[in-house]
Amino acid sequence: MKVAFQGETGAFSEEASLALFPESQPVPNPTFEAVFEAVRDGSSDRGVIPIENSLHGSVHQNYDLLREHALIITDEIQLRIRHNLLTVRGSNLENIRAVYSHPQALGQCRDFLRSTLAGVEIISSYDTAGAAKMVAEKNDPQCAAIAGAVAGTEYDLITLAANIESNHQNYTRFLALARSEDERPRAQERDVPMKTSIVYAQQDNVPGSLFKSLAVFALRDIDLFKIESRPLIGSPGKYLFYLDLAGSMSDEPVQNALRHLEEVAASVKILGTYAVGSIMDG
Amino acid sequence: MKVAFQGETGAFSEEASLALFPESQPVPNPTFEAVFEAVRDGSSDRGVIPIENSLHGSVHQNYDLLREHALIITDEIQLRIRHNLLTVRGSNLENIRAVYSHPQALGQCRDFLRSTLAGVEIISSYDTAGAAKMVAEKNDPQCAAIAGAVAGTEYDLITLAANIESNHQNYTRFLALARSEDERPRAQERDVPMKTSIVYAQQDNVPGSLFKSLAVFALRDIDLFKIESRPLIGSPGKYLFYLDLAGSMSDEPVQNALRHLEEVAASVKILGTYAVGSIMDG
Repeated sequence: MKVAFQGETGAFSEEASLALFPESQPVPNPTFEAVFEAVRDGSSDRGVIPIENSLHGSVHQNYDLLREHALIITDEIQLRIRHNLLTVRGSNLENIRAVYSHPQALGQCRDFLRSTLAGVEIISSYDTAGAAKMVAEKNDPQCAAIAGAVAGTEYDLITLAANIESNHQNYTRFLALARSEDERPRAQERDVPMKTSIVYAQQDNVPGSLFKSLAVFALRDIDLFKIESRPLIGSPGKYLFYLDLAGSMSDEPVQNALRHLEEVAASVKILGTYAVGSIMDG
Repeated sequence: MKVAFQGETGAFSEEASLALFPESQPVPNPTFEAVFEAVRDGSSDRGVIPIENSLHGSVHQNYDLLREHALIITDEIQLRIRHNLLTVRGSNLENIRAVYSHPQALGQCRDFLRSTLAGVEIISSYDTAGAAKMVAEKNDPQCAAIAGAVAGTEYDLITLAANIESNHQNYTRFLALARSEDERPRAQERDVPMKTSIVYAQQDNVPGSLFKSLAVFALRDIDLFKIESRPLIGSPGKYLFYLDLAGSMSDEPVQNALRHLEEVAASVKILGTYAVGSIMDG
């Protein structure tokens, strides 16, 4: 089984892929679009993408791709994001003159960089694992990367400092995607808590239209895990809603609620039904 | 009138500050915390902070600071974010060997960097205007910055390429903050559309509790501009809600709705009541 992820070998997305599919072969891809495309054309069996981070919020780009593509969500997992300062064997903290990482990781480690590595050059890479790979290839004791522990192991780097992220409440939620015809049968789904993700657009910006759309769930005692409005730029007063609800598409109340939602919303897209994911300390 | 913003002179936050308060003196600050502190201790009369971006979503850090501080929102504005490649006079695109900018701006211009500047070193700075300032100070024709047009003018740089952001639907919403005793009287607020921002926590994770909290607005025909749930890490099943509603705290239905919300929510914090802001093409 091949699982497409965005980034280099050793990326957090690869860690999430292996946590979800331990027997699989993760396949690196340069962009999120390439991950969706690899699943769509069958060259990968699954794709794994980040959908929200506890500090940075929803990954709107991946919500847009979910809306544009016919893929469905099959699984989720939450990964604790821990950043480490990695370098080549034989070097140490005093040697470091340049630090490479993904812009978001550099931002998350801003306090560490400002205090412990003040004056050091901070250089952006396209991903954290890619930065680790480059530092390994350069083999320059003055260069370090910020990346996860898996990338350090992958590229045989040593850890100069661990858990250097400013805010330790740093979790990313990843989703696994499949073509709908490839989704595995859910024989046991009645035994585990399930979740269903949808995106919908309001019919009009009239007072109470959001309330009406949420009534379809409340009237059936269906709980919500997530709701987020997103303004549609260029259409003032129009919004998309991201919604995660408790329950499976095979539950009759969920089916009824979504049929009811179609009556009161302009458009509804079901992104998938899947088991509520575990939290993994990366 | 002094207005505190985060970043160097020429930052998008400064542009927003001057758009909101044309006669004011903007004051650069190193962090968002410093902006809140400057307003709290009276060294600045207002603070201006980004609260959400159309591509990256809500700035959770500033929502956290709003919850922790006693400041209130007095105004808002939306600024179109346009990025430019800036360098010193006499240089040109072929010369450029290193590009400096804020990590988020580098990410937003990823396509341009990959296509037009492939192989060039990409270096992170703490803000876009700070990158422009540094490039001007270096006075090295091989270095360029990605920043807004205002930063280019401020540091006397030339524009090698304009509007290089991958997605042009790039808007940031900024809020102005004041101590509640410093807020100006709102004599004319009945004449302009008003907005009120709140943060609240649910009483329990029981089915329908979100619905009940939204009912307090729907029952009074109060429209919502924004709703976003944010999981409280470490408290499974507990959420905060960010909510922007149509209307002013001086409207009786809004007062009644918020009193009603206090009955059904665990905690409610009113962040401010202010005129619906304009959209400005930066």
